[in-house]
Amino acid sequence: MTRQAEDALVCVTRGEDQDAGVVTLTLNRPRQFNALSEALLTELQQALETVAADKLARVVVLAGAGPAFCAGHDLKEMRAAPSLAYYQALFAQCTRVMLTMQRMPQPVIARVHGIATAAGCQLVAMCDLAVASSTARFAVSGINVGLFCATPGVALSRNLSRKQAMEMLLTGDFIDADTAQARGLVNRVVPVEKLDAEVRALCHAICAKPAAAVAAGKGLFYRQLETGIEAAYQLAGQTMACNMMDESALEGVQAFIDKRSPNWPSR
Amino acid sequence: MTRQAEDALVCVTRGEDQDAGVVTLTLNRPRQFNALSEALLTELQQALETVAADKLARVVVLAGAGPAFCAGHDLKEMRAAPSLAYYQALFAQCTRVMLTMQRMPQPVIARVHGIATAAGCQLVAMCDLAVASSTARFAVSGINVGLFCATPGVALSRNLSRKQAMEMLLTGDFIDADTAQARGLVNRVVPVEKLDAEVRALCHAICAKPAAAVAAGKGLFYRQLETGIEAAYQLAGQTMACNMMDESALEGVQAFIDKRSPNWPSR
Amino acid sequence: MTRQAEDALVCVTRGEDQDAGVVTLTLNRPRQFNALSEALLTELQQALETVAADKLARVVVLAGAGPAFCAGHDLKEMRAAPSLAYYQALFAQCTRVMLTMQRMPQPVIARVHGIATAAGCQLVAMCDLAVASSTARFAVSGINVGLFCATPGVALSRNLSRKQAMEMLLTGDFIDADTAQARGLVNRVVPVEKLDAEVRALCHAICAKPAAAVAAGKGLFYRQLETGIEAAYQLAGQTMACNMMDESALEGVQAFIDKRSPNWPSR
Repeated sequence: MTRQAEDALVCVTRGEDQDAGVVTLTLNRPRQFNALSEALLTELQQALETVAADKLARVVVLAGAGPAFCAGHDLKEMRAAPSLAYYQALFAQCTRVMLTMQRMPQPVIARVHGIATAAGCQLVAMCDLAVASSTARFAVSGINVGLFCATPGVALSRNLSRKQAMEMLLTGDFIDADTAQARGLVNRVVPVEKLDAEVRALCHAICAKPAAAVAAGKGLFYRQLETGIEAAYQLAGQTMACNMMDESALEGVQAFIDKRSPNWPSR
Repeated sequence: MTRQAEDALVCVTRGEDQDAGVVTLTLNRPRQFNALSEALLTELQQALETVAADKLARVVVLAGAGPAFCAGHDLKEMRAAPSLAYYQALFAQCTRVMLTMQRMPQPVIARVHGIATAAGCQLVAMCDLAVASSTARFAVSGINVGLFCATPGVALSRNLSRKQAMEMLLTGDFIDADTAQARGLVNRVVPVEKLDAEVRALCHAICAKPAAAVAAGKGLFYRQLETGIEAAYQLAGQTMACNMMDESALEGVQAFIDKRSPNWPSR
Repeated sequence: MTRQAEDALVCVTRGEDQDAGVVTLTLNRPRQFNALSEALLTELQQALETVAADKLARVVVLAGAGPAFCAGHDLKEMRAAPSLAYYQALFAQCTRVMLTMQRMPQPVIARVHGIATAAGCQLVAMCDLAVASSTARFAVSGINVGLFCATPGVALSRNLSRKQAMEMLLTGDFIDADTAQARGLVNRVVPVEKLDAEVRALCHAICAKPAAAVAAGKGLFYRQLETGIEAAYQLAGQTMACNMMDESALEGVQAFIDKRSPNWPSR
């Protein structure tokens, strides 16, 4: 199933049979807690773009190898040759990865089994959905080394209420998985032995819907959030009218009327 | 009390005595789960505009006849003669209803006793307040027939956190009333036999306040949400200064100082 | 420790030893429930500006003397000589205080031990963080005297979900401390006898971080909330790159790599 060499920094695996539409991207620097080195970010960007263009890919799972989900940037690499231009380029590279996840047609689900800190917590916040095990913990801990997690804060403040986000950013403290769920950072929390089954169930639910509707809907969702409500409704009405003209929707609605299952050729 | 023929698609009823300011709009296609046909939307638009201009109407309750609150658009009608122009016009008509609720001077309270799906869930999200019984359930289920609930998503994503909204939109799954309350979609949840009493108590609380303050406040609330905080404060300061010059506010504040009840002639 | 005469309307106290960076501003009209008279607002504005310019001040605690945290505007003073121009100026003065808290470099923590109503509730909402005792209660109660809490609503609607905010604004009802926490209005709730210890712990956590990172991060946090996500990331990336070039961050990251405590000269 795995398509990369074992030394890939991001392992891309595709499911089989009923999981055929599921592509899992696994951050693979387990001994470095999957820290986002430049090389890893480059591979992740490449993997996301490849999946985005893949018509057979229906949903993406973002996971981490080893004990951690992701511990953020690679601080050793970051510290090696300080310069403003270098840091600007690094955060721009990281932002590109984050926005690519949000803009690709497939939903991206974070599978969080361990710590997700700094840009690792940002990855969770930027995914469309997130499933955590009760062993997961979340922090934006840059402030502990004197570096306020500004870019993670962009994502975090669009998931949590502002005082909750601000507390995490100012203290660097961890929150547990249940707290993350209550605050909106993750959708579901399960015991770690049930994490894969829960992620898989969510993937199956998404794979069972027509790809065109999911892609159009995901894109619309984030665009309309950035406008006033009247413009949002105009965008959404246009999206929905186009969606309704799609063969899958016409068949799906007809099947609903006929009280039968829709006959969607390829989902 | 009822002012319409029994075959009205939207029944308009006005309370008596201490409920005189309460206008209840009941979606009345019980066998179709109150699906929003074009004819029903037209009647609802008309009813909302009539109430909006009615100086004696102080608060609106939106309810549904029969087992459901509202199951969204009428899919049979929608499927009959597909065309892009038709769907654009249909969603524009529906959006007009939604925005009229938000822009009318009276608060609108959703009274949700059963399922609220797709545009039915959108109605709940667009109301100023919502009271549900524990028998209520909520979903944006269009994706199950291949039609992403884009316009309901506009409303939903302005009530729930984004991951919670996205999960509902991508899975089409139901949430129960307690979950809806925890996420901000409804204000209160009560046993079904106490639903009317709870709605009525909320109506009385609103009818006890001066109409001018409520109307100005409601309008300001949604306007300021769409601006930056500095512009929001400018709008709000102007609203509050004008409100303070109103006879009711001057009397209300004086009564507070005098430790007596305000003598508001007509509320 | 206290630097003012006992008749100060806002007492400014500075901690000693490990609390040296903590400045406490105590609203001091206990018999008037710390109502925000013009004179008090003027003193508060002055105190905030003084602290904002004070390089040794690292965190601000906003507290109230006597039984209440703050009961909002001084209604008796407000009612004395009604004029539109006067009310416009009053709300502009109050807004200036609110925005100064948000724009000053130090985090501001509300310490809420009693009622916080109307503009008193707004103060809590505008603080970066808030710690309440279980004896605290919150309301935007202006509507009870015919004055919709429009300016408090600006702050409240940026903390709570919109239906929760609207319910408080339309009913004037109190919520208790646990509800306030669940909805995002306060960060932490503790028994009243532990309130000062909890506030102090939060202050120490913030004082332990470099001032430059905290100040840059706080400023960025509110700026990026008012933009779209792409602009937000540009602002945040620039903030983070500059922060990383700061001596404290370079030392903090190096210390992390070296597995030792950072050697920050003055925090």
